[in-house]
Parts: sequence; structure tokens; C-alpha cells
Amino acid sequence: MQIAVLGTGMVGQAIAGKLVGLGHHVMLGARQAGGEKARAWAAAAGASAREGTFDDAARFGEIVVNATNGAAALDALAAAGAENLAGKVLIDVANPLDTSHGAPPTLSVCNTDSLGEQIQRAFPDARVVKTLNTMNAAVMVNPGLVPGPHTVFVSGEDAEAKARVAELLGSFGWPAVDIRDLGGIATARGTEMYLPLWLSL
Amino acid sequence: MQIAVLGTGMVGQAIAGKLVGLGHHVMLGARQAGGEKARAWAAAAGASAREGTFDDAARFGEIVVNATNGAAALDALAAAGAENLAGKVLIDVANPLDTSHGAPPTLSVCNTDSLGEQIQRAFPDARVVKTLNTMNAAVMVNPGLVPGPHTVFVSGEDAEAKARVAELLGSFGWPAVDIRDLGGIATARGTEMYLPLWLSL
Repeated sequence: MQIAVLGTGMVGQAIAGKLVGLGHHVMLGARQAGGEKARAWAAAAGASAREGTFDDAARFGEIVVNATNGAAALDALAAAGAENLAGKVLIDVANPLDTSHGAPPTLSVCNTDSLGEQIQRAFPDARVVKTLNTMNAAVMVNPGLVPGPHTVFVSGEDAEAKARVAELLGSFGWPAVDIRDLGGIATARGTEMYLPLWLSL
Repeated sequence: MQIAVLGTGMVGQAIAGKLVGLGHHVMLGARQAGGEKARAWAAAAGASAREGTFDDAARFGEIVVNATNGAAALDALAAAGAENLAGKVLIDVANPLDTSHGAPPTLSVCNTDSLGEQIQRAFPDARVVKTLNTMNAAVMVNPGLVPGPHTVFVSGEDAEAKARVAELLGSFGWPAVDIRDLGGIATARGTEMYLPLWLSL
């Protein structure tokens, strides 16, 4: 498949690298094309890896992964273009972490709303699935790193989109029994609000 | 020991019952003395169980457990009396659940504050320890109900108070290795904000 990964940080690179390893064609998207991190990643990841703008990547991808900084996610997706996201599965792995007020970091949205819901509202034609946002990047793409059974959550309104994401998670190494569908996109509140406990730990 | 448990709901009764079973003298506190639930509990729990007002109970207890409804907790503790809480370990197991806006329930405080912090600020001479608020009442007092290793968290400013709470948790059946000190009372944000995920599950 052709897959777009928006965001060139640790999470974006981990997911993009895994997808290349699984045989997909992957474009890493950033605010500007040709950035140092993105070029270095594409050069190292080989022939099926490329980089471009958010817009380039979203056009390219049959599936789009939002791995941007949560605070910048809505702007990044606007730059990606609603028309390039329409009808596509949009996997949102971002957390709305707000570090601008010092430690401990807080969430920029929570309790009565979530980043997942904001994204689904802003891009109603995208099929948003929130997942993988409760663990670090290394575990996302290699669940066996943590011994014993553990769980990845999925939230979203579109059952078929969630099924496709579960398939992708399966290819990352997640056993079907450990992929837990929490329900609609509003359940992203729960997985995003888990962040303060996770950070304490 | 003499221990006060404020709140006559499932959580209060589970903790009070366990404490009686462990040989403590326990007073269950409610807004008014002589309520049906409290009298029934005290009658069933035997000679070392009694019931009274929040004030009666807080006077009686060397340790005070706040097992009230989170929305009512600050009022209940005000009724218990700051002077009756001063210097004592105050174990806060409540969650600031707000069901007034329908489903899904939200939190009445979160993100930049927590019920645990509100209680510590309102009663600065009490030694507040937040714990047990991440699981149901049956598991609180019988951790073996859940197979495999699992964790109870403690948050609070007073190391000696946390050590006494850890001892009490040990008597409930929590292995020391599964009692995780998260840090100061601000870390109660994390365990309280875990609630939406827990409720989804």
C-alpha cells in the first residue's frame, strides 16, 4: 500500500520505518519538503521511502497516519488538505500535550472533548481512528518489547476503518486479542487522558 | 486502630468491612447519623463497627478514609471538620465524577488540578494520600480477584503518611512490589484522569 506518515519525530519515523519494513511505500510528510530529518530518514529507509510536504504525503497515501505533535496536529492536517483526507482512513496517534506551562505537562483539550474528536469534526469526510497513543514509539511497532499480554486501544466511528487499522496493527505484531475497540471517537478522551498517569510512571 | 470511613456507598462499605475484618474499630460516617444503610452495615459488621455523622467519624478515627461521592467530597470533609482531620492521614479514594451532563460522565476537576489537590489545599493540616481510586471496590480490598500482577498507586506530599497507607494496603493483600508511589499529590491528576478509560473498558 501507499501510506502517508505526517510528522518526522520519533513516532513518525518509528511507524514509517516499520511500514517500509513491511513492504509498503511510505511518504513522510512535514511542513516543508526537504527537511534534514525527513531527508535523512528517506535516504536510510531505501527505495520505497520518500518525503514531502503534508500535502504531498496526504495525496500519496491511501492511508494517512497523523504522528505530528498534538499541539500542531489540526494545522498539519489543514496543510495536508481536507480533500486529500476525504474517504481515507486517518490513523491519529497524537496526544494533545501542552508543555507551554512547564511541568507537569497538561492536555490542551480533555474531559468533554479530545484531539481525536476535534480531528474528526474538522475533517468529517476522513475516517478517523485513534490508536497507539498510550505507549512509546518503540512499543507501537514492536509490542513484544513489553513482556506479558498488554493492550492497544482503537476508537472511531467507522467500523470498517477500525477493522483495517486492526489489520495493520496485526502486521505490527499486535495479537488480535490485545486490540481493544473502545467504541466511538469520543472514547479517545480516555486514552488521551491516560497521558498524565503514563507520564508520572 | 480506630478508623473512620466517610461515605456509606459500595466503596465505603467495602473498605469499612475489610477494616473490621482485620480487627480495627471502624466508624462509618454519613451526612446524618442513623441512616438506613449505615445502621444496616454496623449491625451486620459486629461489635467493632459503628456509625455516626461525618463529624463523629472524623473525631473517632486515627486515620480517615474519604470514600464519599467525589462531587460531594469537599462538603463532606468540611462537615467532618478541619480540626478533626488535622495531623491525621486522610486516605482519599474518591473520583471527581460528574454525571450531571449524562453519558459519558466527565470529571468535575482535571488536567491542571485534581480532587486530591483540592482536598489537600482545603485541609492543609491533613496528610492526604490518594490511592485505590483506579479500581472497583471489590478489588481494592481483595487484589487477588484480578489474576496476575497489577498495581495500586499512591500520591501525596507526606512520605510517612504514604508509608502508613502502604502498610494498610499490605494488610488488604497488596504486595509491596505492586504499590507504586507516583510522587506528590499533583500526581492524583493522573489516577483521576484514568477514569474515562476505565469507564470505557
